[in-house]
Amino acid sequence: MSDFQRRSAELNDLLCVLNVLTWDARTQMPAGGGPARAQQMATISALARERLLDPAFERAAAEVQEAGMQGDEVQRRAAAQALEAIAAMRRVPAELTHELALLKSEAQELWIEARRTNDFALFAPALTRMVELNRRLADALGYEDHPYDALLGTYEPGVTVATLTPLFERLRAHHVPLVQATKDRPPPRSDFLYRHYPAEAQKRFSLTMAEQFGYDVGRGRLDESAHPFEISFTRGDVRITTRFQETFLPAALFGTLHETGHALYEQGVRPELSRSVLTSDLLGLYAVGGASYGTHESQSRLWENRIGRARAFWDLHYPLLQDTFPEQLGDVSTGEFHRAVNRVQPSLIRVEADELTYDLHIMLRVDLERALMAGELAVQDLPEAWNARIEADLGLVVPSDAQGVLQDIHWSSGMFGSFPTYTIGNVMASQFYEAAHAALPDLEGSLARGDYAPLRGWLTKQIYQHGRTYSPHELLTRTTGGGLDPAPYLKYLTGKYSELYGLSPQEAHA
Amino acid sequence: MSDFQRRSAELNDLLCVLNVLTWDARTQMPAGGGPARAQQMATISALARERLLDPAFERAAAEVQEAGMQGDEVQRRAAAQALEAIAAMRRVPAELTHELALLKSEAQELWIEARRTNDFALFAPALTRMVELNRRLADALGYEDHPYDALLGTYEPGVTVATLTPLFERLRAHHVPLVQATKDRPPPRSDFLYRHYPAEAQKRFSLTMAEQFGYDVGRGRLDESAHPFEISFTRGDVRITTRFQETFLPAALFGTLHETGHALYEQGVRPELSRSVLTSDLLGLYAVGGASYGTHESQSRLWENRIGRARAFWDLHYPLLQDTFPEQLGDVSTGEFHRAVNRVQPSLIRVEADELTYDLHIMLRVDLERALMAGELAVQDLPEAWNARIEADLGLVVPSDAQGVLQDIHWSSGMFGSFPTYTIGNVMASQFYEAAHAALPDLEGSLARGDYAPLRGWLTKQIYQHGRTYSPHELLTRTTGGGLDPAPYLKYLTGKYSELYGLSPQEAHA
Repeated sequence: MSDFQRRSAELNDLLCVLNVLTWDARTQMPAGGGPARAQQMATISALARERLLDPAFERAAAEVQEAGMQGDEVQRRAAAQALEAIAAMRRVPAELTHELALLKSEAQELWIEARRTNDFALFAPALTRMVELNRRLADALGYEDHPYDALLGTYEPGVTVATLTPLFERLRAHHVPLVQATKDRPPPRSDFLYRHYPAEAQKRFSLTMAEQFGYDVGRGRLDESAHPFEISFTRGDVRITTRFQETFLPAALFGTLHETGHALYEQGVRPELSRSVLTSDLLGLYAVGGASYGTHESQSRLWENRIGRARAFWDLHYPLLQDTFPEQLGDVSTGEFHRAVNRVQPSLIRVEADELTYDLHIMLRVDLERALMAGELAVQDLPEAWNARIEADLGLVVPSDAQGVLQDIHWSSGMFGSFPTYTIGNVMASQFYEAAHAALPDLEGSLARGDYAPLRGWLTKQIYQHGRTYSPHELLTRTTGGGLDPAPYLKYLTGKYSELYGLSPQEAHA
Repeated sequence: MSDFQRRSAELNDLLCVLNVLTWDARTQMPAGGGPARAQQMATISALARERLLDPAFERAAAEVQEAGMQGDEVQRRAAAQALEAIAAMRRVPAELTHELALLKSEAQELWIEARRTNDFALFAPALTRMVELNRRLADALGYEDHPYDALLGTYEPGVTVATLTPLFERLRAHHVPLVQATKDRPPPRSDFLYRHYPAEAQKRFSLTMAEQFGYDVGRGRLDESAHPFEISFTRGDVRITTRFQETFLPAALFGTLHETGHALYEQGVRPELSRSVLTSDLLGLYAVGGASYGTHESQSRLWENRIGRARAFWDLHYPLLQDTFPEQLGDVSTGEFHRAVNRVQPSLIRVEADELTYDLHIMLRVDLERALMAGELAVQDLPEAWNARIEADLGLVVPSDAQGVLQDIHWSSGMFGSFPTYTIGNVMASQFYEAAHAALPDLEGSLARGDYAPLRGWLTKQIYQHGRTYSPHELLTRTTGGGLDPAPYLKYLTGKYSELYGLSPQEAHA
């Protein structure tokens, strides 16, 4: 093991430990453990930062890089990423990092209280300060065209406002009329989704499906938490959580399939990349095997939506769901169930949105945070801007800020620039799926038989195994021959909703 | 916060993090997580060791110590303990620490396999090496009379072979004839202990009792694990585990009360000592608020045995247990139940032993490990020595090494010198109980009413709140006026078993 590898391994260990502490805090920790846990995490973060910025680590990385073509390509990429992260972190003043960390705890508490009491004014000063500090962070990190680019780049390397603008315009031009067209059709029956579904049985069914997809519970586990997430401490321990709603079946079911997609990615990283820079987000101080937020999301959305909401999936698995809930679903056909879990229904809340309106929620947030960053929108004007946009895009009146501008945790935790990655994930999911389809002539057949190994195998070979070795753009280019392209995604959505709602080609492109 | 306090806090954070990683590994982690977890723990241990041996930490501690009488007494004690731990750790060559850590993993795996296949020869070479390395550890740490003293001192400061020998002789002279006397009486009825007791109901009852004792579940939780334990990450998060046997009621019930005793100690440490040297075992690299292993055990044994196995406890709580298990206990009186959970029954397995024969199990182990350390006994002769002693002390023939010399994990994890602390804990428990009794005239009355606050309050004031500020000897002297003294313990046992078995004073001292 080289000095660079040894130091990288230590750093990754620290990031994995941070993840264990986070998982425990969100799923197991008694309330009394909170204050000490925050200090323990701050201590480990500080140590990770110290090790990352240790001049000896930089020297070790530089040596590997200088070894040039004689060295190992994977090691050289790891070294390049380390040097880039070190340089970026050096550009951010320690005092700003410290201020941001302090503000994060404070802003999150205020946000929780503001959402509970529906009082945006309570959160506004902290949010104003958060915008300021993120603007300073953007300046420190550096950018060419737009301060938002600097922040976005930490979540999705290579994507900028200049990339996003035409992409979003195209999606918008497609989604808005398609949503309208579905509105003109009678809504599918969905009453049965709200019957009583005991959590224990939901968990059993969801985990069975996760294992069918290939989730290895010998290297993972499913728990409950207030907000579902996936987290890994190397590929040998990749955990997922969900939240059971006993009177709304889809929440935990599709939530589990979503997190399973993330987990398949992490479990598929090849063993050699464990404890390396190529399973470490060094700038975010987070242990993760996925290439970017968007790439990760492409896998959760692919398994949740392309596979888990497909008619072929329910033709095969609906009988087991009916056996699990005979009283609740005895009077519901496969087709009715499939249509219900795919119904388009403009709603106020992003995490409850269907596939079509979901992107509209994202674009709203991205436009607003981009304007905040550019100084074109003041925090105090945010609720009004939010509500106007919801009405324009979805035809809904926002009855309270709690169901509007205060619904997401992201801004209170300073994650400006992460929202675009959800939609980027959707776009990439369809690109990868089309590439898999081209490579695997019997893909549809295998999926219809419930054999997920061919798809998972292709994704593992092309994406998962590489961890963070390749950039999202490289992964796309290697598999599809080009960069980010919304065409496959739009084609999928048009086809899917035309069929579900019986729309003519003209209506679908109205 | 002084530099010493800041560095102590960071060190304690690291030890708490190690405890979180341990708890997770033993209660939640999927099998696949094992190898990476071992590396994560090794990384945190190495960092803790590095921070402890950082010359800047030694200087900061020395400054506090030199501040002398002008400083704060608690800070001065913390500094003195830090300097002592630094000096001790410096005496141990890094290479020996490393060898021990490696051997520990290897030996534990071999021990598990050896126990499973009842093959002592498989474990013997690793154990021989473990004895050698511990002998070298003893030499490095230093001792006056006996190498065993050096090891024992890391678990129970101030206790040596010279202290133990007369103490153990006196206990032995008391216990052996008393066990014999109970054997001459008809054994109490105990068939009902082996009926079917569903784990969920056991958990509910056990946790209710733990909360009655004062265990705060807002700062803790009860889980299942293969080997029950208590572990803390500051007083705000003190977790306990137990193991449910559905066909043997006492295991989880008294196991929970035992761990609750440990937990009350940790939850009772005063808040100011969190994140300090006085809640850190710096030599063992373990976050713990108790003064020593023996002091800790005194509290688990006090709550489990003096309170939980007392007639007054069952007079009060047996109705709830009967309500919980009406079919299993409907035909069993309070007296029958109380006698059954206190029956004396020589057995092969330490963790299943009653209060009387338990100490005999301990003395056997201590005599053997002391002889191993002194080079008076070879590892290959260990099984024979073990079996001969079990026959002499308990009148039992050991049918297999798995139920004999291979039953405990301690030697495979290198914990030579920790066994005496179990018996020391028993002795201290009675001393503390007698002191509490003298200070609280209505102690028996409050216990009979199920009011555990007066006893817990006294123990908190005299012992728990101080964390590791005072040595075990100081705690004893402050509360009882003297050092380790078996008289109260022997008086308790004689009284208890005379009454349970209807022994005359002559028989009890036969």
